[in-house]
Amino acid sequence: MAVITLTSDYGLKDHYVAALKGVLHRELPDPKIVDVTHQVQAFNITEAAFILRNAYHHFPAGSVHLILVDEEALPNKSHLIMQLGDHYFVAADNGVLSMLNPEKKPDKIVSIDLRNSPELSSARDIFARAAAHVVRGGKIDLLGRVVKDMKVALVPKPIKRDNDKHLIGSVIYIDRFGTLVTNLQQREVTEMAKGRRMRINLPRGRKVDKILGHYYEEKSDGNLIAIFNASGLLEIALFRTSTDTFGGATDLLGMRLGDQVDIEFL
Amino acid sequence: MAVITLTSDYGLKDHYVAALKGVLHRELPDPKIVDVTHQVQAFNITEAAFILRNAYHHFPAGSVHLILVDEEALPNKSHLIMQLGDHYFVAADNGVLSMLNPEKKPDKIVSIDLRNSPELSSARDIFARAAAHVVRGGKIDLLGRVVKDMKVALVPKPIKRDNDKHLIGSVIYIDRFGTLVTNLQQREVTEMAKGRRMRINLPRGRKVDKILGHYYEEKSDGNLIAIFNASGLLEIALFRTSTDTFGGATDLLGMRLGDQVDIEFL
Amino acid sequence: MAVITLTSDYGLKDHYVAALKGVLHRELPDPKIVDVTHQVQAFNITEAAFILRNAYHHFPAGSVHLILVDEEALPNKSHLIMQLGDHYFVAADNGVLSMLNPEKKPDKIVSIDLRNSPELSSARDIFARAAAHVVRGGKIDLLGRVVKDMKVALVPKPIKRDNDKHLIGSVIYIDRFGTLVTNLQQREVTEMAKGRRMRINLPRGRKVDKILGHYYEEKSDGNLIAIFNASGLLEIALFRTSTDTFGGATDLLGMRLGDQVDIEFL
Repeated sequence: MAVITLTSDYGLKDHYVAALKGVLHRELPDPKIVDVTHQVQAFNITEAAFILRNAYHHFPAGSVHLILVDEEALPNKSHLIMQLGDHYFVAADNGVLSMLNPEKKPDKIVSIDLRNSPELSSARDIFARAAAHVVRGGKIDLLGRVVKDMKVALVPKPIKRDNDKHLIGSVIYIDRFGTLVTNLQQREVTEMAKGRRMRINLPRGRKVDKILGHYYEEKSDGNLIAIFNASGLLEIALFRTSTDTFGGATDLLGMRLGDQVDIEFL
Repeated sequence: MAVITLTSDYGLKDHYVAALKGVLHRELPDPKIVDVTHQVQAFNITEAAFILRNAYHHFPAGSVHLILVDEEALPNKSHLIMQLGDHYFVAADNGVLSMLNPEKKPDKIVSIDLRNSPELSSARDIFARAAAHVVRGGKIDLLGRVVKDMKVALVPKPIKRDNDKHLIGSVIYIDRFGTLVTNLQQREVTEMAKGRRMRINLPRGRKVDKILGHYYEEKSDGNLIAIFNASGLLEIALFRTSTDTFGGATDLLGMRLGDQVDIEFL
Repeated sequence: MAVITLTSDYGLKDHYVAALKGVLHRELPDPKIVDVTHQVQAFNITEAAFILRNAYHHFPAGSVHLILVDEEALPNKSHLIMQLGDHYFVAADNGVLSMLNPEKKPDKIVSIDLRNSPELSSARDIFARAAAHVVRGGKIDLLGRVVKDMKVALVPKPIKRDNDKHLIGSVIYIDRFGTLVTNLQQREVTEMAKGRRMRINLPRGRKVDKILGHYYEEKSDGNLIAIFNASGLLEIALFRTSTDTFGGATDLLGMRLGDQVDIEFL
């Protein structure tokens, strides 16, 4: 039986997550539910997409991923189910689905229409019904109408400067260790480098001269490092520290979401 | 196999929740455990009851709900298991059970007595044993002695003023979006309105002129709205904002738990 | 099928916990996963060991406990799987395993070597593979090479003073109720007392004259009490209060991690 994952901005105190799980337990006899996170900043679909993007591909093929952020349907905002490779995603048509894997074209998008089930009174009920349908092996076409388009969210892209001497990215996520995750992709950086050496210019006069392939290449706790993470994105981190101990990279550099990271090719 | 839900003030860092789940895994081969919340304010049975009241009815019939807040037995405070419709609740006799559905009479209350199982050394062990008994299909009568009464907690009720021109309720819960949930019930408000128009008078000179039936009736982010929630309770909210972004209703109005909400009938 | 528990410093917002659970769901068709905690202070193996030590023995025999704190392998830090009685533990060789039950000798320690599975690219993947192996009933010897030693962490031990008139312990954990857990063991205290009366001397002129056997021996909310907890460790607590209401023992006494607790034998 396929896994159902939950990504929401519901927090962990209120009854919202439990109500959703209760409904899933009524829809399916023994659902396999995994929480991705319920700590997304309220209504922040960019953050939701970032977290799920890094998690979903670790799950088995056939998994259904529910995104409950800004999920209420409005007259101009329907509920969608998207097939992307071996995975299914349910969300409102608010742009979040477009950020899960921008490099990959969705295999199918269905605008969910369950008006013939009027007992479903909320996004929660509709998402649970859609998930149960997929878990039972149902085709997503049966959940509504196949559509060609969905809302596409604008995401900041790295910029080239000075005749390809610089690639300027930005911080798109800061994790609990204070590590700065950027939108600089390994493939793009490598192609643009054409074998040149690199230097990453950071605030407060800090520079990093190489990008590690693995954490174990570093030896000293607290050193500032750059590394491509498992998703191929450049991270700036302090080796084995965190914001709740001696401070992470975000504290050392005073960098926040949206701040620039400059790779200079020498 | 029935679901077991957990509502506690244990928090998510300490070992208490895991110890309880470990015991449940020893009692049952493959328990279906769902966390409702572990973030109840310590010893706050009113908050625990509010959260579980909004969650429990979404679960399948036969579910067992454990409430681990102020749960230690004392000479004058026993452990109870209550049947309420198709659901079972286990808690200490501290008043929390009386707040789960004040409109509905319990079908049966049993004072749990497991003194012939001296290996059960704590509320945790006793609650887990009781839950496992119900999940296996056992009658709750076998867990102890049927009792007629339990402790009833006092809850604030709305007050009528000025010849039924005003109904004064109060804030009983504030959720993670900063939404103010009141004790004003849809049925009571509608009956008292007798078709009159209403105005909700709030602090800082704010007024709301109608109560929405659905969130999608509102269009503008940040607007102050009133709405009856899924449990039929009046909520005061800011449309699509929250305390961790631009502030919720609690921030705009400076309102806290226990503050008054005045409905004026015109 | 055996339970797999997770203890980490990953927090609950980022994708790390979900990625691990996703991998476990690919390794096993229906894994029984229980979160112990993901709120360990970053890289704090002492805290991780304390929390898991109090939780693990509640789980069924055969359970596998994964500790994801400072878990990356380095040239001088391998991944270990340890059998301790009926339980299995997977962690990096950083000392955390030595603190789980210092009184008990491990039954077997294996240095994990999965170099012939190069698709396992991280501690996460390796821990999941090791757990799945054990859950399927595999012998831990097959996961690598049996070793005799592991890194042993230094933990503070109580000190005797003034001809056995004093036993000085220290605070090793503070729970969400503000209760101070010390390293003073019931067995050690009782042996040293030799029937003498005791007085616990605390900061700010506070004294406690007896150590309770059960919470129900106390009657008054807010009273300062001393009690041996379920693990046999002396706790200093305020009866039925907490840091998020009227303050716990940590607030009343101004005591923090590492502060001294003096038992005087009279």
